[in-house]
Amino acid sequence: MKNRIIVNKLKDYLNKKVTVGGWIHSIRDQGKVSFILLRDRSGVVQIVTEGKIVKENDLRNETVVYITGNVIEDKRAEGGIEIKLEDVEVVSRPVKPLPILVNDKAFYQKLEIETILNNRVLSLRNPKRNMIFKLQATILDCFRSFFRDKGFTEVTTPKIIATGTEGGTQLFTVDYFDRLAFLAQSPQFYKQMLVGAGYERVFEIGHVYRAEEHNTSRHLNEYVSLDFEMGFIENENDIMDMEEEFIFYLFEEIHKRHSSILKLYNQELPIPKKIPRIPVKESCEILEKEYNKNLRGYDLDPEGEKLIFNWAKKQYNSELIFLTEYPRAKRPVYTMPLETNPDFTRSFDLLFRGLEITTGGQRIHDYNMLVDAFKGKGLNLLDFEYYLDTFAYGMPPHGGLAIGLERITQQILGLSNVREASIFPRDRNRLIP
Amino acid sequence: MKNRIIVNKLKDYLNKKVTVGGWIHSIRDQGKVSFILLRDRSGVVQIVTEGKIVKENDLRNETVVYITGNVIEDKRAEGGIEIKLEDVEVVSRPVKPLPILVNDKAFYQKLEIETILNNRVLSLRNPKRNMIFKLQATILDCFRSFFRDKGFTEVTTPKIIATGTEGGTQLFTVDYFDRLAFLAQSPQFYKQMLVGAGYERVFEIGHVYRAEEHNTSRHLNEYVSLDFEMGFIENENDIMDMEEEFIFYLFEEIHKRHSSILKLYNQELPIPKKIPRIPVKESCEILEKEYNKNLRGYDLDPEGEKLIFNWAKKQYNSELIFLTEYPRAKRPVYTMPLETNPDFTRSFDLLFRGLEITTGGQRIHDYNMLVDAFKGKGLNLLDFEYYLDTFAYGMPPHGGLAIGLERITQQILGLSNVREASIFPRDRNRLIP
Repeated sequence: MKNRIIVNKLKDYLNKKVTVGGWIHSIRDQGKVSFILLRDRSGVVQIVTEGKIVKENDLRNETVVYITGNVIEDKRAEGGIEIKLEDVEVVSRPVKPLPILVNDKAFYQKLEIETILNNRVLSLRNPKRNMIFKLQATILDCFRSFFRDKGFTEVTTPKIIATGTEGGTQLFTVDYFDRLAFLAQSPQFYKQMLVGAGYERVFEIGHVYRAEEHNTSRHLNEYVSLDFEMGFIENENDIMDMEEEFIFYLFEEIHKRHSSILKLYNQELPIPKKIPRIPVKESCEILEKEYNKNLRGYDLDPEGEKLIFNWAKKQYNSELIFLTEYPRAKRPVYTMPLETNPDFTRSFDLLFRGLEITTGGQRIHDYNMLVDAFKGKGLNLLDFEYYLDTFAYGMPPHGGLAIGLERITQQILGLSNVREASIFPRDRNRLIP
Repeated sequence: MKNRIIVNKLKDYLNKKVTVGGWIHSIRDQGKVSFILLRDRSGVVQIVTEGKIVKENDLRNETVVYITGNVIEDKRAEGGIEIKLEDVEVVSRPVKPLPILVNDKAFYQKLEIETILNNRVLSLRNPKRNMIFKLQATILDCFRSFFRDKGFTEVTTPKIIATGTEGGTQLFTVDYFDRLAFLAQSPQFYKQMLVGAGYERVFEIGHVYRAEEHNTSRHLNEYVSLDFEMGFIENENDIMDMEEEFIFYLFEEIHKRHSSILKLYNQELPIPKKIPRIPVKESCEILEKEYNKNLRGYDLDPEGEKLIFNWAKKQYNSELIFLTEYPRAKRPVYTMPLETNPDFTRSFDLLFRGLEITTGGQRIHDYNMLVDAFKGKGLNLLDFEYYLDTFAYGMPPHGGLAIGLERITQQILGLSNVREASIFPRDRNRLIP
């Protein structure tokens, strides 16, 4: 490998000769002198050279080059240093005209989401958009390190499944040799089974699939789910406690590692003292009283979610709010009902800036209670035997949740469309790139 | 949450009163006194109690309990400590007879793989089998931390795709609304595109799908692929260097964190000084000369892989061997040919104890060369426009590889079937659990 120095390490090589490599971000020709901005994975640096070098080598935007030269101080250049070119090696030249500009700082506002996605590789070369997925990688990293530290085991569970987790709706079908199979909507059953298999605490990061016809700015048909499940809990509050601690840790890490990205996106990420926990029934009463909004069935619509965010912000100075105790009718069959009022459950959503980013709760762990719940929904017990049997051999009280990776990324950066937070999103119409 | 102490922390609570929780692993009734082994996610501890307690509470194997009592020293007990029971709370009772024994140390040898998998949750409660996936979680952890440290960005790419990576064979089909789509065989195209999108170095851990009819002890139809791809390389040796460094790091970490698991599985994990790199052509000549084995087309069959492992072990004291320079006909269309002999390529496999665990190499980065290669295979360029266009706007030389998570787990522990190294494997016949 070439002994190449990446841009954000150049300050360690002041007055030394180095080779850098990357894409030509822009060229400013001032006749005798030319200024090239070179972009690599870590940043952008200014290269100073004679004007004729640019012409002789036919350098253009997005040409891949190695450049050798001396690192010198220059207070006017970004980062305070520049490289005085001694040698240039052209590695790869663009062979087609660029369909979109990479280096237009303002382009972010001007391109439609469809144009951005149709030109995904080039659109990601823009430093501002590129950073979305560096921040997303930090979310993945923080999720894992947090839960590993808490004694969770990372697992990988199948995405091709024989029966649907929530009873068979909104599933994509797969031709599996001579049979029909489905793509998993969530690792729900498997993570519960692994709690029961003795791991007690498991987490998984993996794709999940929803065959929803919706084509909105908040839906994806394939997305990444950050899941955990834990045993030996008292109730759903243990799960919310765990998520709260994780969210605070994550926000702190983002402040530490990515303050420049937050700045670029004009975002602050205030960490509340405590995330309020409001029963969904109460939230509906608040919406009615404060905003004159009527909701049926204790289920918030997108407008209701935005209003309750405003309320929580005002009341608790929190951009996050747990809505708890959802009605049983709105929750999956395995959700633990409240003893005091079995029409409601030990479940919750977490809203962040008015968007649901988590669904979670305590699950039923008693075999007979679970079998009755499945029967009550008219489900065929035989289809779910492999899951139900888990509960027949000693199962601790447990619960868990799932965080949507793209949604939390979107909300942290204030992106208007969840597709911006998916590298290659899949929606009702999009299978490419 | 209950203030519960996990078993491997008990030594910090000597002569103190604690509560532990878990599954009853076994009960040894000596009339007046009973010894219970209690199992949690971290280990097993002995509980001493009066015989009547077991009867009064109807305690049986796999009952979930909380036990409160004093931690006392007992040199005869495993771990040197035991708990003198003061209180027991039954949390969950088995409601069916156990179809397999959890606590039979010898059962590992006796159960068929089909029985193990049909009773997956119970079979994983056996401590020896349970540990397979704790070691696997360490592989995931090491892969990520190693590549993050090397400046790689973690990415997640779609598994539902419009066209096959390798040209459309062995793909599962998905009904995607009104269209037909496929499950990704590998993130190959996407990771290359992300190198070109400016990330330069990316890694991904995700499921991949192969609709192979094979039903052997080394094939899975859904498995986890550890992928990386990096730009600005000189040639495929940079990729092999990176993998070698990773493998050595991984093996060291496994020695550090899991020496007890290696011992339980009677495995050593010697780290060679250097992994030999032998052109596949040469390996065939060796097989012919040393073992009188004739192979056509420079492609090793499973027996050939085992023999070349024996040879490398003898010759280089290495259980790992890189086979390099595969014929172009055997490799995907995007593989970089050798300048000196374009019938062969800058590609390699890594064999570990006679099993292929990695395929990798340098890729073509020149647009026209790649277009010609696609045409040469008779592929429709329009189907691959989204990928090919990546190469039209400046692309650095690059390469990468994929490691099969289940296969490397299998080989580290010496498991006879790759299904043992998949929590919930999917094969030709198995979709459940």
